[in-house]
Parts: sequence; C-alpha cells; structure tokens
Amino acid sequence: MKKLINKPEDVLADALKGVSEAHPELRVDHQHRVIYRAQPKDHGKVALISGGGSGHEPLHGGFVGVGMLDAACCGEVFTSPTPDQMVEATTVVDQGAGVLHIVKNYTGDVMNFEMAGEMAAADSGVRVETVVTDDDVAVQDSTWTAGRRGVGVTVLLEKIVGAAAEEGRDLDAVLDLSKRINAQGRSMGMALTSCTVPAAGKPTFDLPEDQMEMGVGIHGEPGRKRVPLAGAAEIAEQLVDPILSDLDFQGGPSIVMLSGLGGTPLIELYLLYGEVAVLLEKAGVQVARTLVGDYITSLDMAGASVTVLKADDEILRLWDAPVKTAGLRWGL
Amino acid sequence: MKKLINKPEDVLADALKGVSEAHPELRVDHQHRVIYRAQPKDHGKVALISGGGSGHEPLHGGFVGVGMLDAACCGEVFTSPTPDQMVEATTVVDQGAGVLHIVKNYTGDVMNFEMAGEMAAADSGVRVETVVTDDDVAVQDSTWTAGRRGVGVTVLLEKIVGAAAEEGRDLDAVLDLSKRINAQGRSMGMALTSCTVPAAGKPTFDLPEDQMEMGVGIHGEPGRKRVPLAGAAEIAEQLVDPILSDLDFQGGPSIVMLSGLGGTPLIELYLLYGEVAVLLEKAGVQVARTLVGDYITSLDMAGASVTVLKADDEILRLWDAPVKTAGLRWGL
Repeated sequence: MKKLINKPEDVLADALKGVSEAHPELRVDHQHRVIYRAQPKDHGKVALISGGGSGHEPLHGGFVGVGMLDAACCGEVFTSPTPDQMVEATTVVDQGAGVLHIVKNYTGDVMNFEMAGEMAAADSGVRVETVVTDDDVAVQDSTWTAGRRGVGVTVLLEKIVGAAAEEGRDLDAVLDLSKRINAQGRSMGMALTSCTVPAAGKPTFDLPEDQMEMGVGIHGEPGRKRVPLAGAAEIAEQLVDPILSDLDFQGGPSIVMLSGLGGTPLIELYLLYGEVAVLLEKAGVQVARTLVGDYITSLDMAGASVTVLKADDEILRLWDAPVKTAGLRWGL
Repeated sequence: MKKLINKPEDVLADALKGVSEAHPELRVDHQHRVIYRAQPKDHGKVALISGGGSGHEPLHGGFVGVGMLDAACCGEVFTSPTPDQMVEATTVVDQGAGVLHIVKNYTGDVMNFEMAGEMAAADSGVRVETVVTDDDVAVQDSTWTAGRRGVGVTVLLEKIVGAAAEEGRDLDAVLDLSKRINAQGRSMGMALTSCTVPAAGKPTFDLPEDQMEMGVGIHGEPGRKRVPLAGAAEIAEQLVDPILSDLDFQGGPSIVMLSGLGGTPLIELYLLYGEVAVLLEKAGVQVARTLVGDYITSLDMAGASVTVLKADDEILRLWDAPVKTAGLRWGL
C-alpha cells in the first residue's frame, strides 16, 4: 500500500489537522471530528449538517461554509460517524430555526443520524428534519444499503439547499426543497481500479487489467456488472443510458456533474465529459450548468460517476448563488 | 493501461471537446488547440499566455479566465506546443499593450516560445516579453531541462501576475513582477508511483512497492534519489527541508501550495499538508495563504509537490483579487 499517510489508524485525525491548518476560515473540533463554518450567520438561519465515512473528500468537509453546510461530521474511512458526533454538531449549529440532516442512504449513516436527531430533540429541544439521498441507479439494494445508494446528488443538494437556507427559508421549505432535489437527481458510477482502505492495506476488490466495474459504489461495493474494458465513448453510454432510462430529463434545464473517484486525473474527466455531453445533447437534455472534477470520491479509486439533476429557473438561481467552501467557491 | 480515453492519439483533441462543453465561458480553438478567455477585457490590458505539454491539468487551460491567463496553448501529452500555436494565440490576445509569455523551463517549451515571440513580433508587431519559471529545487539539470525545472510557482505566478495585468499595469511592470515571483518561489515534489503516458501504454518508470522517488519531475523525470517508502511526516521533511535550505522565507508572509500529482486523493493531500504546516511553523515561516489540491499534475502519478512563495502585502493583495477560471475561482 502506497499512501501519503502516517499510521493507518491515524488517517482521519491527521487529515483533520491539515484541514484546520489549510482553512483558518473553518473551525475543526478535533475531539468530536466535526468541521464547522467558523462564523455562523447568527440570525435564525436553518442549519445544514451532513456527514458520513471519510474517504469521499471533498464531500462533506469540503462543503462546509457560506452557502452550503454549517457542519460536517467525519467518520473514520468508509465508516459512519457516531450519533454523539451528530448530536454535538446539531446542538452547536442550531440557531433556533432547526437543523436539516443530509444523509446518504447507507444503513449505518441512516441509523446513526436518526438516533442523533431523536437525542438532540429530546435533550436540547432542537427541531431536526432529515433528507436521505438515494440517487444511484446502479443497484436497488447493496452490501451496505437497503434501497438505492446516496451518491452524487448529495453534492448538488448541499449547494442548492444551502443557498435556500442562506436566504432565510424555514425548515419546512428547506426540507421540501431537499426532497425535491433528491427526487430529481440520478447518478451512475464506474471503476477502472479498486480503492485501498488504509486500515485494510490491500485493494478492496480485484479487478483484472482488462475489466471494469459498472455501477460501482463509493466504497467499492459491487455494481451492476463487470464488463470488458472499453473506450470513453462506450463508458459514457453505459453511464448515461441507465440515468436517462430512470427519469425523464426533457423539457427543462439540467445540472450535470462528472466526478472523479479520486485516482483519475482531470484530463480524463474532461475527456469523458465530452462524450457524456454528446449523449445528453442527442437525448434532448438541456445542460444548463456543469461541474467536472473530484467532488465525491472513493479514496484512490480510478473511475468516475455522472449525476444529472432536473432543474428549473429557481434551482439554477440557487445553484448560482454565492458559495465559499474549500471544495466549491464562487461569488465570494 | 486503464484510462478513461478513446484512442491514445486522440486524448488531447477529445479532452478539449470536454473542456468546451463544460465551460461555455471559454473559447476553444480546436484547430490550433488554444483555450481562450471568451470575453477579453478590451481596453489595452497586457495579455498573458502560457502553455506546455498536456497532462498537468488544471495547468494551464484551467487557469484561463478573468484575473489569470488570456490563453493557454495545449501541446500533446508531455510535449511542447508548437510555435504556430503560440503565434496564433499571441496575435489573437494582443490588445496593443503587449503579451507576456509564461514558460516553464523545459528545453522544448523555451525554444518554441522564443521562436513564437520573435515571429509574432516580426509578423504582427506584437511586443512580447517572456518569463521562464525555474522553481524546482530538486535537481540542477534534468533529462528535459538545462537549469532547474519550472513547476508549482507557475500556478501562483499566473494568479498573481494575472491580477496585476487585470489592474492595468503595463508590460514592463508585469514582466518585473513575474520575474520577482519566480525568484521568490521554490518547489519540491515526490512520487509514490509512476504515471502512464497514453501513447506509451505503460508506466514511464518502475518504482518498487517499497520505494518512492524524491524530487521527481512532472513528466516522471528522475529526481534526487530513490528512497525507502516513509510516512507522511518524513515525506514532508524531505520536501520542506530542501526548499527552506534554498531560500530564506523568514521575515514576511508566504503563500504555500500543496499540489497532488493526479492520482492521490484529497484526504492524503490534506494529511500531508498538516505535516508540512508543522515544519513551516517550526522554521518560522509565516503561512498567509494556502492552496491544497490538484493544481499541477502528472497524469495519474500518485504523489505530491510543495511550493512556497515569499510574499508581501502587495503580493497577498494580488493573490486575493477576484479570479474566475475553471481551476481557481473566488470573488466572481
């Protein structure tokens, strides 16, 4: 295993030190492993929290800041954060207007956030609502999930709903919007290689030199099928077709994200996006906004995922609103 | 070779299609393989051009836009662009105030940009000045270079000098500043793995599982030495010590960039930055601004480089100025 780490068991703690050194504009609670927006907007804004296992950076810590999240709870690599981390974060960020938990659909995350929401409500009277993302069209259930997995739409949701909260919308409105965004987004990913979890020290799965995994999960969970290695044009088809078969994206603008999985360089991501764009255009999808780069990753896995979100004028306006985080920034 | 590409010989052309699809705010000349800022600031601004072999993205195409470059000339992977690309770009972007060529110190790039500068001056009367970056402390000469190689400082220079040009400074002032930035920056990189050039189809060099290459070049050129694999704390020392031995960074603020080489995930980059920050603090370096992520890469190479730039209040002000490019964006 070749990684820029010290001891495998210290990866998260050490990485959080780097985050706090690189981003004085954030506040890192090293004990609870929570990354906070350092200067909360203290006038009763609905607070947004997300979190999950580490190894998907910039998700979620890289999306804490003005216009997105108020806090991110960081679990160990590919391991759910604990309820006590979430209770701490929920209590700290609440400004009296309630807290939205943004949870990717994985069994551990869903269970722990549910428990934390109940505890925060019971102990501190915080009103907590939850949106569970489940946009991955690859498989219905998986090793780690009942129902579909939550993947790339989570990034878009945190941006759009973050802007809505920043505008001062109340918890009911923020919750409604978040559910609408999740319902209107679909994703599909593929891997050229496995990732290697530091604590395991070896690749999560074996993938022969002439094969790829279509529909892979962000923890290396099996996808739909293992197929022969193909060119970017064919890979794009295998990613886009299942997305377009699952939801009708015609008749309005869409936001498209092509995210690398961590080990794939930007030149390949742009190349693949070129193929994706051709297919979307052919299918009559009107791409209004695009994001190409590493946004939801799987450690050092080589590969990519595509997310398409059916938008409208209001969603585009919220997308364009100013944001200042480590992972997404414009207008500020 | 596992890559998200079609034919190896089409990588650059295909990637440029993706860039133009993803960034309607840029203008891509697919014939000359030049990426332009679509809406030039047409009031006699000094124009900035850079370029070089592809495979280092987001450098340079990702730094075209308001507050940075006016154009980037894209060579084939790890191959200098040709003089005719540079002449075309120089002629197109000139607004009458002259053009600065920002050239990384590699033999082919330096030769071709020199030829292009002379041709543009002779044919179109454009005044061209050139800054050659050579910040890599690893080796004095290399396979591809007489003198030191130009690496990470190029990113910081394009940002800072881009802001100065945007303010309306004349070509002499812009040139002076660019030389000062280069003189005040130092970099050092390391590789855990080789990269694979698509046209070659196999890794550029062999690096055993228990070794790493200190001082590696951004094309996989040999560095200072091949040493046993070590933890992040020791790697940080081996990167920071040669930088601090080469220039005195005390007595003022510095800008620090930790760039991944393309195959290393963000969690490892932050982890390594945590170690770098500790060493810089111990050495009395005052880190005023930080950039952690993929900014100057080597295809899919796993590893990282550190760049430290001695700054001052004026340089920090130019650093903070608004920028809107695919690879760096704030304030706009």
